[in-house]
Amino acid sequence: MERCGNRLSLISNHLSHVPKHNWFKSDGWGFRDTKFDVNSKGQVFLQGSRYEYSGKVLPHFAKWVEEQGLDFGSRAKIQEIIQVDPPINNENFLRDVKKLPIIVSQDNQERAFHSHGHTLQEMFIVKFSKFARCVDVIVYPTNEIEVEKIMNLANEHNVLLVPYGGGTNVTHALQLDEKETRMICSVDMSKMNHVRMVNLTSMTAVVEAGIAGKDMEEELARYGVCCGHEPDSVEFSTLGGWISTRASGMKKNVYGNIEDIIISVRIVTPIGTWEKPCSAPRQSTGPDANNFFIGHEGLFGIITQAIIKVKTLPEVKAYDSIVFPSFEIGAKFMHECGIKQIRPASIRLVDNKQFRFALALKPAEHSQFKTFIDSIKKYYITAIKKYDPETICACTLVFEGSAGQVALQQKQVLEIAKKYKGMRAGEENGKRGYFLTFTIAYIRDFGMEYYLYAESFEAAVPWDNLDKFLYQVPKAIEQACIDKGIRKKPFISSRITQLYDTGCCIYIYFGFFAKDLADPVKTYTEIEDLAREEIMKCGGSLSHHHGVGKLRKGFMNKALGEPALTMLRGLQNAIDPKRIMANSNLFS
Amino acid sequence: MERCGNRLSLISNHLSHVPKHNWFKSDGWGFRDTKFDVNSKGQVFLQGSRYEYSGKVLPHFAKWVEEQGLDFGSRAKIQEIIQVDPPINNENFLRDVKKLPIIVSQDNQERAFHSHGHTLQEMFIVKFSKFARCVDVIVYPTNEIEVEKIMNLANEHNVLLVPYGGGTNVTHALQLDEKETRMICSVDMSKMNHVRMVNLTSMTAVVEAGIAGKDMEEELARYGVCCGHEPDSVEFSTLGGWISTRASGMKKNVYGNIEDIIISVRIVTPIGTWEKPCSAPRQSTGPDANNFFIGHEGLFGIITQAIIKVKTLPEVKAYDSIVFPSFEIGAKFMHECGIKQIRPASIRLVDNKQFRFALALKPAEHSQFKTFIDSIKKYYITAIKKYDPETICACTLVFEGSAGQVALQQKQVLEIAKKYKGMRAGEENGKRGYFLTFTIAYIRDFGMEYYLYAESFEAAVPWDNLDKFLYQVPKAIEQACIDKGIRKKPFISSRITQLYDTGCCIYIYFGFFAKDLADPVKTYTEIEDLAREEIMKCGGSLSHHHGVGKLRKGFMNKALGEPALTMLRGLQNAIDPKRIMANSNLFS
Repeated sequence: MERCGNRLSLISNHLSHVPKHNWFKSDGWGFRDTKFDVNSKGQVFLQGSRYEYSGKVLPHFAKWVEEQGLDFGSRAKIQEIIQVDPPINNENFLRDVKKLPIIVSQDNQERAFHSHGHTLQEMFIVKFSKFARCVDVIVYPTNEIEVEKIMNLANEHNVLLVPYGGGTNVTHALQLDEKETRMICSVDMSKMNHVRMVNLTSMTAVVEAGIAGKDMEEELARYGVCCGHEPDSVEFSTLGGWISTRASGMKKNVYGNIEDIIISVRIVTPIGTWEKPCSAPRQSTGPDANNFFIGHEGLFGIITQAIIKVKTLPEVKAYDSIVFPSFEIGAKFMHECGIKQIRPASIRLVDNKQFRFALALKPAEHSQFKTFIDSIKKYYITAIKKYDPETICACTLVFEGSAGQVALQQKQVLEIAKKYKGMRAGEENGKRGYFLTFTIAYIRDFGMEYYLYAESFEAAVPWDNLDKFLYQVPKAIEQACIDKGIRKKPFISSRITQLYDTGCCIYIYFGFFAKDLADPVKTYTEIEDLAREEIMKCGGSLSHHHGVGKLRKGFMNKALGEPALTMLRGLQNAIDPKRIMANSNLFS
Repeated sequence: MERCGNRLSLISNHLSHVPKHNWFKSDGWGFRDTKFDVNSKGQVFLQGSRYEYSGKVLPHFAKWVEEQGLDFGSRAKIQEIIQVDPPINNENFLRDVKKLPIIVSQDNQERAFHSHGHTLQEMFIVKFSKFARCVDVIVYPTNEIEVEKIMNLANEHNVLLVPYGGGTNVTHALQLDEKETRMICSVDMSKMNHVRMVNLTSMTAVVEAGIAGKDMEEELARYGVCCGHEPDSVEFSTLGGWISTRASGMKKNVYGNIEDIIISVRIVTPIGTWEKPCSAPRQSTGPDANNFFIGHEGLFGIITQAIIKVKTLPEVKAYDSIVFPSFEIGAKFMHECGIKQIRPASIRLVDNKQFRFALALKPAEHSQFKTFIDSIKKYYITAIKKYDPETICACTLVFEGSAGQVALQQKQVLEIAKKYKGMRAGEENGKRGYFLTFTIAYIRDFGMEYYLYAESFEAAVPWDNLDKFLYQVPKAIEQACIDKGIRKKPFISSRITQLYDTGCCIYIYFGFFAKDLADPVKTYTEIEDLAREEIMKCGGSLSHHHGVGKLRKGFMNKALGEPALTMLRGLQNAIDPKRIMANSNLFS
């Protein structure tokens, strides 16, 4: 505490810490109590009580998944326990680290838990296979001094460190080198989960890196402020993880991406602890050193805390949705909003396939009246306005700000929408669309049990490549599926998720029926690589916000080029000459 | 051209290139035809015809400057020519570089011209002294291939390169090491001054680095777009210079600081030419490599061009001004605008001294009616509203955007102003305040002729340090003047020039009468260092937007700290192992 100056005061320690591996699934995504399942009537329902759809039957969903090729009669057996090889021990390190007043664990399931993120490949392993290499020990520091001691011990004993945040990465960022013979220590940051200071004059907060997004917002809300960074993983991913991966949030238009939110990073590096001595909002003192660590993917040290921007909780939160005759037309609307800097907190456009997917997820509890209204609306949209149900697409909107700002934005958005034959589809659909994100994350596990494998690819693209991207990338994936012998037509769907002045971020969702495949993971990986190549050919980025990890490292030369890669290596040589940081992300 | 892909097309080459040393003053700031002078009646007037005040008498100004201690009877003799030592020649380099189809010059005055920026210390030298070291040769490449060839020759023959943009830096960025025995070559980028492509779909432009801001805007305006980056030096400073120094513009609230404007930097480095292969608006591929070069201050290569964002020319441009009872109260208004993200394109608050300075600059041509109105206004403000003329201060505002955006911002600003007893002072005052900036830059030369030496310091500061900063820094400068034997009371004045979510940028203007001093430059430098120390003690940054150069290098350890400095050195070791880039800015 005292190390950060007299402005700091500990706010609270009320965040009870139940180790994540006790409540997070070991074989999939999210809370253990939340899972899609099929009831005796063959209807899909969501277990648990956490989400809007929890405990509800989704009467149309079974039909939808069956249309994708899924067969409820054929269910894969998920393993109960992951087999884990014995740890490699560095006895001197273990002896010394155990002297610290922290939890040190070598439990096998905990070791597996800390050795993966959430790519399709990793989900296959947790369900059906085993990891080639797991971390050997997990430590749970509770403050920065302990992190420094762990770093010193790693330096002294030649042990490798891997920082662990929310474990939600989708880039193989936590994958370990099976040939590594040194002991590997996972530094689980979950006990460093406090908001340490809220400064309502400068509108900043000092927050420990291990805090999960949702916990941080709850803490900040007690002071009437928020951070507003809301990636799809916000329930589980951490501040440190966001910084390490250069994350983006769904409401970045109001709150910024992580690089806009961070005033300063505090990090324990192999050559010392660093934080920019001055926390002024903008500085012209050479290349921004915070940026060395925003996106470092664990290569340069262990982030312990950050000073972040906070904003007053918004006066108004409003939701809306607009339907467009087709995705192509909707995309033109998004382009115009983008270049005109009309930026609701969140503005996302889903294509027809995702639109229908969302409709298929509507729960049964909708009142008769609502269903009645829905069918009138549907009639109006399809018969009166003559939208084709096979091409119609939807934009969901979230507005946050002062009443005046929100009103102006709503007006501006609707003016533009009108030019593109957009029709308002109501607040409820907008809200549902936004929060559906959190539920959808659970569907992949459900699909995998029935051999429907799914993944998403994201990329940023300049506006002038948008049409090409949206046409070519799905086509390339479809062709790749044919070439790889996938017989059933895959599910390929696009969504525009973020607007910028000069381009946007696109998600491609990809699902395929894997039962007939000899090695579905290998097949999938090949298709993914082909998709990524096509994305880059179409001017898309290697990643918009998930990072590189080891999954996309092979593309880094193409994505970044020399001599920038040489400079990245220069940074690594300067900060980690002994290569204590183990995870080998980003570049070879 | 062909090297950048098929989207490029040369737009025009209409920018006639008259070498800058032919029209820019050799002994001071700006156009040779523009200069403050005193007429036979003892009135100050501005020569020339370029600016609003050009050709006009400023009847109140003489009185104001005399109040600062200036004596029109005592005028210093400015040297006509700067003495320059003979160049150090590397004959092999000279022989090879002369084979290129470019201008190569060793003219002495051109050498001096390319060896300085615009610090007070440098202005003293150009007027009264000589440079310890000048560049030995100047080359004028016209395209990137020539820059690459120059780089290769420098590598081959061990010659040092210094990129030269607008020459307007105020950090000793162009100062040379007098002990350097190798040949030093200035690479003047002014012939690489084209807008090469405007992309109205992605709203980007490809622009060569040597273009001056004003020329670029003229070019872009032909396509209905603008960049909007408007530093005080926009008439002369260049795109490459902005990137190198991490510049900020007066209208950054709408157009962004340079790091927000740049989509990608293209740079010829000692180990190769680089540009990020993908121009997507945002990427998560490790630490942002563009940022290695934004603020590199010439250490890592020669920037040849950049892809920048452009915006449609604003629908509405509006000016306004508001007076507040005191600077302290005005600062609270600025704070509230800052944290509420109410951001007109430009919003600046000047203290009472600068307010009166601006009044003193009012030209004589004001009609009798205007003067009449002015005095009524003045009566209203001081007698009816009971503002104290000794404390009153003013905020000037520029709004740019759609009619709706501008109207909303105006409303929001005035609502906040009302809370702080702000009173509208009209559009004309706002406009005048904004454009005065360009004229004010000429005043220093005028003052120096009469021994009134002036400089400004800028810094960013978090909001919670603002009061302390505004109180302590001027006090420390005043005390330092007393301690250093400056007998007349110095002019010390503050201005808040930029708002951010978590803080602001402040300029401190400092003028002192130097006639009695044995070594005015030494005295000034000591005071500047003391001021900078006090700024940093008050939480202020080493620089907000001017950079570090050699002037503030001694503070970099304090400002950035280890291990970030080690990482900067790591970048340099990677990109310039042979130290071809000569200017030794940023760090030792």
